[in-house]
Amino acid sequence: MTASALIAIDWGTTQARAWRFDADGAIVERRSAPVGVGRLHGTAFDAALAALLGPWRDDPAPRLACGMIGGRQGWIETPYADCPASLASLADRLVGTPGRELTIVPGLATVGARGIPDAMRGEETQLLGAVALGEADVLAVLPGTHSKWARVDRGRVIDFATFVTGELYTLLLEHSMLGRLAGDAAGSQGSDAFARGVMHGLGPGELMHDLFAARTLALAGRLAPDEVAEWLSGLLIGREVREGLRWARESGVGAGGVRIIGDDALADRYESALCDAGVPTEVASADSAAYGLWRIAAQAGIAVRAGIAVEPATAKAGAVHVGA
Amino acid sequence: MTASALIAIDWGTTQARAWRFDADGAIVERRSAPVGVGRLHGTAFDAALAALLGPWRDDPAPRLACGMIGGRQGWIETPYADCPASLASLADRLVGTPGRELTIVPGLATVGARGIPDAMRGEETQLLGAVALGEADVLAVLPGTHSKWARVDRGRVIDFATFVTGELYTLLLEHSMLGRLAGDAAGSQGSDAFARGVMHGLGPGELMHDLFAARTLALAGRLAPDEVAEWLSGLLIGREVREGLRWARESGVGAGGVRIIGDDALADRYESALCDAGVPTEVASADSAAYGLWRIAAQAGIAVRAGIAVEPATAKAGAVHVGA
Repeated sequence: MTASALIAIDWGTTQARAWRFDADGAIVERRSAPVGVGRLHGTAFDAALAALLGPWRDDPAPRLACGMIGGRQGWIETPYADCPASLASLADRLVGTPGRELTIVPGLATVGARGIPDAMRGEETQLLGAVALGEADVLAVLPGTHSKWARVDRGRVIDFATFVTGELYTLLLEHSMLGRLAGDAAGSQGSDAFARGVMHGLGPGELMHDLFAARTLALAGRLAPDEVAEWLSGLLIGREVREGLRWARESGVGAGGVRIIGDDALADRYESALCDAGVPTEVASADSAAYGLWRIAAQAGIAVRAGIAVEPATAKAGAVHVGA
Repeated sequence: MTASALIAIDWGTTQARAWRFDADGAIVERRSAPVGVGRLHGTAFDAALAALLGPWRDDPAPRLACGMIGGRQGWIETPYADCPASLASLADRLVGTPGRELTIVPGLATVGARGIPDAMRGEETQLLGAVALGEADVLAVLPGTHSKWARVDRGRVIDFATFVTGELYTLLLEHSMLGRLAGDAAGSQGSDAFARGVMHGLGPGELMHDLFAARTLALAGRLAPDEVAEWLSGLLIGREVREGLRWARESGVGAGGVRIIGDDALADRYESALCDAGVPTEVASADSAAYGLWRIAAQAGIAVRAGIAVEPATAKAGAVHVGA
């Protein structure tokens, strides 16, 4: 095996993904493992890292990681950098694990309306990989358990806000009385339940009231059991889109379009909901975290070849396709 | 044991309560049992009823019940009456169980904003017990798993709306990542975490974003672990109050005050949140369901002494005390 310039790792709550870069900033190989921080239950971090890296273990390339591995339950807690944050803000605050197995990127903190703190770990790196350094005023969404809406301007994360959309969906489906009426969603192929939920979520109303409609529509026979899960997914994503766009207006970013950074299935749902809201979308590369880690490594001068340029990767990193 | 005029039963999802009335419409005895419809798991309804009634089993008085016992998972499904609904609307739609063990009050249905159905079972009876027949334009809240806000005018339930406040609180505390940071709430005696949550809930903002503050405030050390549960309770109740009052304004009921119908501990929380919202409160009798059942029985002429008056009970039924 030839040595590479960087091993980039996005180490989250449920899984970890790793990429090997060559000296030109091109990805040459990918790996992933179900060793998320929330799943380790006592497994040592070094053993989990070995499982993730597999044959790459002997590669002497520096290893740079982002995500919950730097959180309170992670390998070592990294401090938060404050918004607005540039590549340099992150590169200046990297923290090494005690045995130098990994270098970890800090998370980002901001202060929202009424002085309430907000925080992210991992998404800051995806953002800096998905938005080219020269791009102005990009509005991005990173769908997930705790979805993030963020404003990025010329290589700096200006501000962001979190919505607990994914977590609420799982809670409702797995543990609620509302979810008890839900049948097997696999039966809802071809149904418009998701689209109907989105329209309800985009409309006026308050969530604690609107959620009850999943029950009353089902009782009234207007939602089949196998449509309840899709309708709830639409309601929650539609509501997040309504509120994310409102947040963007209030924080002054133009709503010319939204860049979606996330895995394909979830990105499709957000694309569809944003389309229903009349907002154009782009979908960022699925390797955004890797490109962000490359840029931070280059900024920090920690890649194998000293003085590596930040920009060679940017053309790829900023690559997006326009949403359907 | 002397025979009574009516045995009134409020049979809900978690428990059942029963009252014996004398011929003057006074409550002479109370019983309760943990035989809620959601807890029976195959126990026969007649056995559950026998456990609830105990020594009253041989009382020949008619038995009138309200609540989930008339729902799809109950003894027999009763149809919904539509809003606006009077005592007569309910009395005309009583349904007997197959063996005549019980007579059951129908639930109420309404159609909310954008054509979405809403429904209640049991609360319609509490409303008609807690509001005197001559009272005009009362705004009431029935806190609970699925809280109801309702408008009652001269013995008629005009309209209502449901908020899933209690269910969401339980889900978040028992199953969520947000709740994982919560310590033992018993340690929060004397803390102002509930009041701070209420103020946040009453303020502008969207729930899916605001919920994340339970995590970030805890991570930032601004909410102690034993305060998280109280803060979440305040956030959800405050948000329900904000939206309930908005619903009342939109449906045209004066916001001169809110009548709280519920058990003491929960009523205290709503009294405190409504006070913070600047709205005067009254707390209805804890026996509101019993008085409502009495009135419906009298209206239907099913009490032992035919021609029993609806009104004798109303002075007691409408009795309220002004909130602190």
